[in-house]
Amino acid sequence: MTTMFKALAALMLALLAHTAHGQTEDGYDLWLRYRALPAEARQPLQARSTALVAAEPASPMLRAAINELKRGVAQMSGREPPLVQALQDGALVLATPATWPELARLSLPMDALGQEGYALRSVTLDGHAVTLIAANTERGLLYGSFAWLRAVQLGADLAHLDEHAAPKVQWRMLNHWDNPDRSVERGYAGLSIWDWQGLPDIRRQRYVDYARANASLGINGTVLNNVNTKAEMLTEPWLKKAAALADVLRPYGIRVFLSARFSAPKELAGLPTADPLDPRVHAWWRAKADEVYRLIPDFGGFLVKANSEGEPGPGDYGRSHMDGANMLAEALAPHHGLVIWRAFVYSETDADDRAKQAYGEFKPGDGRFAPNVILQVKNGPIDFQPREPFHPLFGAMPHTNLGLEFQITKEYLGFATHLAYLGPLFEEVLRADTHVADDATVARIVDGSLYGDGRPTLIAGVANIGEDRDWCGSDFNQANWYVFGRMAWDPELSADAVAREWIAQTFSRAPRVVDAIDKIMMGSREAVVDYMTPIGLHHQMATNHHYGPGPWVSDLARPEWNPTYYNKADLNGIGFDRGATGSQAVAQYAPYWAERWGRVETTPPELLLWFHHVGWDAKLAPFGGRTVWEELVHRYDAGVQAVVDMRRAWEALAPDIDARRHAEVAGYLAIQEREARWWRDASIAYFQSVNRRPLPVGVVAPAMTVEQYRQLKYSFAPGHGS
Amino acid sequence: MTTMFKALAALMLALLAHTAHGQTEDGYDLWLRYRALPAEARQPLQARSTALVAAEPASPMLRAAINELKRGVAQMSGREPPLVQALQDGALVLATPATWPELARLSLPMDALGQEGYALRSVTLDGHAVTLIAANTERGLLYGSFAWLRAVQLGADLAHLDEHAAPKVQWRMLNHWDNPDRSVERGYAGLSIWDWQGLPDIRRQRYVDYARANASLGINGTVLNNVNTKAEMLTEPWLKKAAALADVLRPYGIRVFLSARFSAPKELAGLPTADPLDPRVHAWWRAKADEVYRLIPDFGGFLVKANSEGEPGPGDYGRSHMDGANMLAEALAPHHGLVIWRAFVYSETDADDRAKQAYGEFKPGDGRFAPNVILQVKNGPIDFQPREPFHPLFGAMPHTNLGLEFQITKEYLGFATHLAYLGPLFEEVLRADTHVADDATVARIVDGSLYGDGRPTLIAGVANIGEDRDWCGSDFNQANWYVFGRMAWDPELSADAVAREWIAQTFSRAPRVVDAIDKIMMGSREAVVDYMTPIGLHHQMATNHHYGPGPWVSDLARPEWNPTYYNKADLNGIGFDRGATGSQAVAQYAPYWAERWGRVETTPPELLLWFHHVGWDAKLAPFGGRTVWEELVHRYDAGVQAVVDMRRAWEALAPDIDARRHAEVAGYLAIQEREARWWRDASIAYFQSVNRRPLPVGVVAPAMTVEQYRQLKYSFAPGHGS
Repeated sequence: MTTMFKALAALMLALLAHTAHGQTEDGYDLWLRYRALPAEARQPLQARSTALVAAEPASPMLRAAINELKRGVAQMSGREPPLVQALQDGALVLATPATWPELARLSLPMDALGQEGYALRSVTLDGHAVTLIAANTERGLLYGSFAWLRAVQLGADLAHLDEHAAPKVQWRMLNHWDNPDRSVERGYAGLSIWDWQGLPDIRRQRYVDYARANASLGINGTVLNNVNTKAEMLTEPWLKKAAALADVLRPYGIRVFLSARFSAPKELAGLPTADPLDPRVHAWWRAKADEVYRLIPDFGGFLVKANSEGEPGPGDYGRSHMDGANMLAEALAPHHGLVIWRAFVYSETDADDRAKQAYGEFKPGDGRFAPNVILQVKNGPIDFQPREPFHPLFGAMPHTNLGLEFQITKEYLGFATHLAYLGPLFEEVLRADTHVADDATVARIVDGSLYGDGRPTLIAGVANIGEDRDWCGSDFNQANWYVFGRMAWDPELSADAVAREWIAQTFSRAPRVVDAIDKIMMGSREAVVDYMTPIGLHHQMATNHHYGPGPWVSDLARPEWNPTYYNKADLNGIGFDRGATGSQAVAQYAPYWAERWGRVETTPPELLLWFHHVGWDAKLAPFGGRTVWEELVHRYDAGVQAVVDMRRAWEALAPDIDARRHAEVAGYLAIQEREARWWRDASIAYFQSVNRRPLPVGVVAPAMTVEQYRQLKYSFAPGHGS
Repeated sequence: MTTMFKALAALMLALLAHTAHGQTEDGYDLWLRYRALPAEARQPLQARSTALVAAEPASPMLRAAINELKRGVAQMSGREPPLVQALQDGALVLATPATWPELARLSLPMDALGQEGYALRSVTLDGHAVTLIAANTERGLLYGSFAWLRAVQLGADLAHLDEHAAPKVQWRMLNHWDNPDRSVERGYAGLSIWDWQGLPDIRRQRYVDYARANASLGINGTVLNNVNTKAEMLTEPWLKKAAALADVLRPYGIRVFLSARFSAPKELAGLPTADPLDPRVHAWWRAKADEVYRLIPDFGGFLVKANSEGEPGPGDYGRSHMDGANMLAEALAPHHGLVIWRAFVYSETDADDRAKQAYGEFKPGDGRFAPNVILQVKNGPIDFQPREPFHPLFGAMPHTNLGLEFQITKEYLGFATHLAYLGPLFEEVLRADTHVADDATVARIVDGSLYGDGRPTLIAGVANIGEDRDWCGSDFNQANWYVFGRMAWDPELSADAVAREWIAQTFSRAPRVVDAIDKIMMGSREAVVDYMTPIGLHHQMATNHHYGPGPWVSDLARPEWNPTYYNKADLNGIGFDRGATGSQAVAQYAPYWAERWGRVETTPPELLLWFHHVGWDAKLAPFGGRTVWEELVHRYDAGVQAVVDMRRAWEALAPDIDARRHAEVAGYLAIQEREARWWRDASIAYFQSVNRRPLPVGVVAPAMTVEQYRQLKYSFAPGHGS
């Protein structure tokens, strides 16, 4: 035994050395880290994962579930469970009514699980204590397997499991703004993960790991390419590349969608027009849809950005969005494909308040879109600002399928270099009550429960994923992918609960560590709001790349491109009047909000300058005696101070976090503090140059003059796309 | 013991599971894989690495060496050697004459080692059998440590080591064509590894691993940014980013250089001119050099591309290259910095044979460059083609420091998707005898031994490194970085020997595997020559991105941008006459070559069409009775067949290679075969459309017409840069 022991010890040390090098916390594993449990936790896991029982032969999707369970258990417990047929104590049993008719006897809520849900339950079957992963479908088993692994990682009592879940939203989807040259528009995590040149020949492991991460959240659709798309993406060579990706993603329950360029019939087939009412155009799209489905039988459908920011669309031919969307819908309908039509329109000619444009264009079309069209609406009426009120279309189109579009990538929240957890933003939007009916939250409109008619539902997120080793450009950005997926599955989840889940899987389960990181995360988005665009300011960023402050910018060709259009700061006051004396944008909301947001006194302070132009010297009740100018400065200072506090809190976590991640996050927080000061100083300097008022007593003056801030260039910022 | 044994076994299994996942062969470790040795090889290594003996406290460079030895030994043997002070049996002793005066007694060739060389020797010291890593400097110890680890990985007899080496070339340098937006011009391995936005705050582990890989080859300089550079790279924020990188690279003996934009004084300081003879310009560069050296005390110097392809330069003011280079040299001289001035000039007005231009511009300046200027000359007179004769400047400027520039990235050899080992190309160039004197090979000119005057010497390679997990876009591309570094250290090394070294460290030491992969690699470059540009053809690629064939292209604005300019194919013949009846480019070479290359009969077949325009129907001796047309077609076919054979040989290696790498390489070879056929078919179709001759008997006709090949677009090819 001694010799064998020595040999074993030597081998173990070799592996340790090996592992110490190979298993740096480089972020690649995301929240599926499955790190070896401490000794005392290993036995309970081993006892509840003695074997896997599943139907054989396993389909690709069931095999994906089995492989994930094997991988997770092996890594966490040191023992890979064998796949067996007979029940045994401690087995994990993957069962559907079709493969395991006995399920019917167990009073499981099978109806509530639907086609995608799962139940986890500790039960005794034929005298064996087992854990049941039950579902009506293999997809449910896949999601249930990931849910069980999450429970293990979160330290659940594996002997007493009893939970079930089903998604409330039908389509939980990522939108990649990835270009065929692998640049990513508003991507801050490196190149596109889609290696188009290598496809379809090279199928990277990364594609599988992408699928695993998404499946673990229940994401079931992905749009591979940018909404500002090239027609070539619909040619055969590119469709074959997309088909190869669809093959990799299929076992993980993810359907592939493509952004379609509305003018493709002209560019690819030389048709003289892309008019949606032209029969040749119609025929071309029908044939193209047939071709796509020959290559990708379960293709999801087309996402279309039309007549916005210069993209082609039906408006080029005097046709409506309905004409365009319904024409494509008819081409896809035989294949049960969807048209996802973006409501983000940014016309080059509309002179009205930009916040009103989408409502103006789409509201009249309510009820006129084909049943396989979903209108995808951004969370707010402008463009993914740190804070916006909910989009007025929510609740305004009861007879139209409305999807919700979030931006996971932080175009306006500091790119990949600032720590900003978006859970609170998503939660704020989803829980917003539109007041178009009782309990008419955005969540209930988007998940369809307000209507109860089984309409297709959708939550989409613009991905923050790239080739960076950690996928998202920083460890904390991974939390935004995570919370998007979790909230798309269940819009009622709280940002705080999801943050804690994520922290426990990503960093540590120690309560002290979870509490400390949760505090950093939960305050981080409000910090960004404060140092960038406090009390309802919006669209104050530098031109083009959107990095850093530009409140003074006023010389761009169209009025609504300019930050000054939005802040309307002058000697007397600041803010955009969207009430009765202004653009009347408030009238696009339900009377409840139109009335409240229409008056300064009943507008919440965090939206004040969104809806109102107010005097610098006005003293408003929520500001506790401070004038608007004093409050504005106060909020900028609070934003900077919040980052200082985040740094301090992170510093204190040094003993609890591995060196690589601790140092990198600390480095990013240093950047964030510097840039928070830049935003604060530049904004205060500019507004002071306009309002000519002294700084409030005790406030530190900006480091430079407004002219100096204007001269700063942030060259070569990432994320331009091509 | 049993309990402990069980606990140990469980832990080991956990680690195994862990490791199996984390240690996929993803290519990140390059040739420094240090995988655990099989049991029978572990003991001999442990016996020869019982401890490390080194001077304390260790400097950062010595610590880098020690850390590498610890890491390598721990991973390969399972036992990390402790750092001790007293000799013991089996110790590794890192010694310089300063730290270990006893070295003098050991009759080591210390003089021959110089400032960078090392000796490895198994000796008995004070009765202890130890391994000596000896050098005159800590840098030598660093290189020696990597050399010892290489010996271990290659399976050397560690008990009987006796080798020493010193670099023959002073500067062994990478040129990154990396832009500040992280695009890489002619980069096919993802974004730049320099995360400029995160710098200087974020110092990635990748920078350290880059330094380790380079130090293992003896590379001692790196130019961080593209020769087509932006002036902003010389501003303080960017210099601080470069300084942070210099800090990381310094312990690995790598000096940082920057490409400098000649017009920077205008762009950054608003000077009205960048005329090198203007005192204001001179003063600006002196001040800039002072600033750079304050931030990077060991800064290497500037690389300059001037008056080429539209870049600014002294020619804009009627000044010469000498004026420009010497002005910069004077600014850098007080800091002992270098000016590396590229001889790649591509004027927009010179109407002569493009192959003659650099010689014409630079040869008259021989002896007029400052001593701290190195003229960096590409290996051939056109531009990194699959095959070129050596550049005529080699041997033509005996009184000027001439550096050699290779391209490691495969701009003209199939990007990252084709397997093309460049060792034979580098070897062919280095061993080419210029015949300007006895034994006047390019290697002896470049390493200075022909002149023996201690002049500064340089071999530079345009890097193929990017953010791809495997660094180079494919596993086999790593071999080109490796062979570049090894040959820059010792230009006499053979491509075959280096390939075998690399294979043994990268894939397997099994002789059968090494032989099979070596055969694939050694034939691969000639295969590319054959299917792209056989018998001396050159510059036949598609426009702009350079991917795929374009022999028909004749409509670009300047004559020498067009492939037809180079192939000069017509009804009667093909090839570029550079002899007495043509451009007389042969006259730029020594009489030996001018005479031989001036006549068809004495021109080697592989350079035939480089130097001569010959009739399609001419039967030349080396072609064994075939006409030129028949030989051309024959070579295209041979190129395709070589790729078919490479695929077959690789397929047979499936049992010997891990699944990930085997599948990926197989995928790339599939692409390569398809594209080799594309090159072959398109080229034959075009030349046949010109020469109107039937295909030789038995030859397969191209799959499509020349018109169809012309219509093919390879859209969104990578590597454009910005």
